[in-house]
Amino acid sequence: MNIDQANADAVGRMIAARPMLTGIGTARDVIPGMRESLLLHAGPPIEWPRMSGPLRGAVIGALLFEGAASSEAEAVEKVEAGEVEFEPCHHHRAVGPMAGVISPSMAVYVVDNAEGDNRAYSNLNEGYGKVLRYGAFAPEVLDKLRWMNEVMAPLVGRALESLGGIDVRALVAEALHMGDEGHNRNKAGSLLFTKHLAPAVGEASDDRAAAAEVVRFLGDNALSVLNPVMAACKAMADAAHGVEGSTLVTAMARNGTDFGIRVSGLDDAWFTAPAATPDGLYFSGFSAADANPDIGDSTITETAGIGAFAMAAAPAIVTFVSGSPKDALDATLEMYDITVAEHRHFTIPPLDFRGTPVGIDLRKVVELGVTPRVNTGIAHREAGIGQVGAGLVRPPLEMFREALLAFAKRYQIT
Amino acid sequence: MNIDQANADAVGRMIAARPMLTGIGTARDVIPGMRESLLLHAGPPIEWPRMSGPLRGAVIGALLFEGAASSEAEAVEKVEAGEVEFEPCHHHRAVGPMAGVISPSMAVYVVDNAEGDNRAYSNLNEGYGKVLRYGAFAPEVLDKLRWMNEVMAPLVGRALESLGGIDVRALVAEALHMGDEGHNRNKAGSLLFTKHLAPAVGEASDDRAAAAEVVRFLGDNALSVLNPVMAACKAMADAAHGVEGSTLVTAMARNGTDFGIRVSGLDDAWFTAPAATPDGLYFSGFSAADANPDIGDSTITETAGIGAFAMAAAPAIVTFVSGSPKDALDATLEMYDITVAEHRHFTIPPLDFRGTPVGIDLRKVVELGVTPRVNTGIAHREAGIGQVGAGLVRPPLEMFREALLAFAKRYQIT
Repeated sequence: MNIDQANADAVGRMIAARPMLTGIGTARDVIPGMRESLLLHAGPPIEWPRMSGPLRGAVIGALLFEGAASSEAEAVEKVEAGEVEFEPCHHHRAVGPMAGVISPSMAVYVVDNAEGDNRAYSNLNEGYGKVLRYGAFAPEVLDKLRWMNEVMAPLVGRALESLGGIDVRALVAEALHMGDEGHNRNKAGSLLFTKHLAPAVGEASDDRAAAAEVVRFLGDNALSVLNPVMAACKAMADAAHGVEGSTLVTAMARNGTDFGIRVSGLDDAWFTAPAATPDGLYFSGFSAADANPDIGDSTITETAGIGAFAMAAAPAIVTFVSGSPKDALDATLEMYDITVAEHRHFTIPPLDFRGTPVGIDLRKVVELGVTPRVNTGIAHREAGIGQVGAGLVRPPLEMFREALLAFAKRYQIT
Repeated sequence: MNIDQANADAVGRMIAARPMLTGIGTARDVIPGMRESLLLHAGPPIEWPRMSGPLRGAVIGALLFEGAASSEAEAVEKVEAGEVEFEPCHHHRAVGPMAGVISPSMAVYVVDNAEGDNRAYSNLNEGYGKVLRYGAFAPEVLDKLRWMNEVMAPLVGRALESLGGIDVRALVAEALHMGDEGHNRNKAGSLLFTKHLAPAVGEASDDRAAAAEVVRFLGDNALSVLNPVMAACKAMADAAHGVEGSTLVTAMARNGTDFGIRVSGLDDAWFTAPAATPDGLYFSGFSAADANPDIGDSTITETAGIGAFAMAAAPAIVTFVSGSPKDALDATLEMYDITVAEHRHFTIPPLDFRGTPVGIDLRKVVELGVTPRVNTGIAHREAGIGQVGAGLVRPPLEMFREALLAFAKRYQIT
């Protein structure tokens, strides 16, 4: 068996994938396997007793949003009575930032791989402040979710239809030339996204105040494109999954308790270990003592060769996640050591337009003891509060070791 | 007399200026000294016989646009009969890119210095392809100008009013963190501009198709913010002008034949020399043989500490103007040698957020023999064709020498 060949095949599919944001649907209608009793969440599988504060908060918020409970207590009761099922977004071709909770009624982006037959989904980004994805569930959080579902989603959906979709790969490629890394810094990408949508949203509505509100929300939220970009990365990573004999990592995700990875040649197995707490910069009034362990599916960006892997393209990000522009450069340079290719479409101007490091090889991670770098937001450890900062984190090395052992066993390598 | 002190004073005013884009008006109504027989143009003073092809083309186009002539021949006849007056934009607190022709009926941006009492103006950017500023005057050029005047300007004007203006200094500061240098690369700035305007334009019109067309035009034109940025730089540079004993350069401008500069402590005198032809990259089908000498008021950006002076912030620009990201870094580093300050508001992430070099000191230019660097578009040398490329150029050293001699004479320095 030729692992290098299998990895080249897998990463080739990842690079060749062309994720197109084609529309918006309702989770229950479009996400395969979605059902009324089910909530999707970020990261590897987890049940209520082990869930961290922000994920519990998002679960409570989602049940309130669905009308399945009318109070926090009732929501918890329902969960403890076993009336709610939990499954990872990743089991349903979906991804969600931070808590990553997707409930049946939620509007979701649909991303199609134009170079393959796979599809991926993500929820809509809520912007800043108190938001479900950081575990907040106050009335204003639910009000905003309702506005997103009822006003924003139909307009953006119609706009996407009239545009014939948005090429997210091209958008990310351009944003990397504009100081984004595509994970924690999506300023340029969100402006490009808004630029594409704004005229079409205006044309899609005869309520100009509503259209203006949607365009303002998209334009003022420097993370508005994060969720479509995550779905695009999921579509790229999934294209590389299931290649016999490949040691390529095709998913990295955290549920706020565990970090988990999946490997191209190891079917749907998760390899997990306790999630670390990020190092970073905290918002005024918060400190490391408030931080929840690492959470969210947004590490799908690093899995697909952007995020911290493209940090050399985004020197200004250090004002947000800590460090110096030199650190940002070094982050990318280090990642070439544990990847198998340089991206053909995603290039880094300050590195003379070198392709981003892409395709994490399990073997290299374990051999060198160098784990992938990750940029991330930091959630408060208690339910209902929200974001407290942003920073840098690494997945635990042990789960890569376990995955490599499983690979050796499965492929009978001694 | 303390020249250093005078320069510190002048550059302090330049840096402290806060240009706000407050509205749109019609040139004849808002530009001081504008009159029916007058056309403004880029660069130092010049008369018809010495005008280059692109400036002549823009003059012809402006006379057709104004209805002052109905054919190219009639326009030329009118000019040759002495019925048209020409004065630099700079004599009227205005600036215009490339040919920089502003005629009485044209809509212009109004920029107010919120930290002073000066005001500046610029025309509206026409986007790509055949455009007046590159000397084209075909019917589609005039049609677009009419659409800009009749549809776009009123909507953008109302939007600016409802927004209470746009802080162009803050916009440029952000764009420099997004890979722009503010002169030849204004991708991020134009998206920020569009983001501010889009919802307000939508609200300003009950014709949603017209609003969408305006938003699409603004968003798809990566130079849409160039003209407001130029007017902002003019407002900053003018704030530094007229400081007794200062050797600070407060204007650099080219009319396609001559390059000219003005100096803070030397009133309104121009010092000129023949404009060089830029080195750069040519569009398919064109070469250096097609290039007109350097043209346009857009060098007001370098005068105010952005453009080529901030090129280290914009490594991706080299795909457009030639060179490597290292060259872009070196361009900025060299400019620290001939300037008197580092900008407090405009910072460069790849240089650890160092302020851009700002405030060109005539003395340093002459002593070191290092002229300012300039990024620029390249016009075809014949009237009516348009842009043929983009590149780099330097102003001739001799006019800096002449200015320094004049300074010595005026201030009786031996």
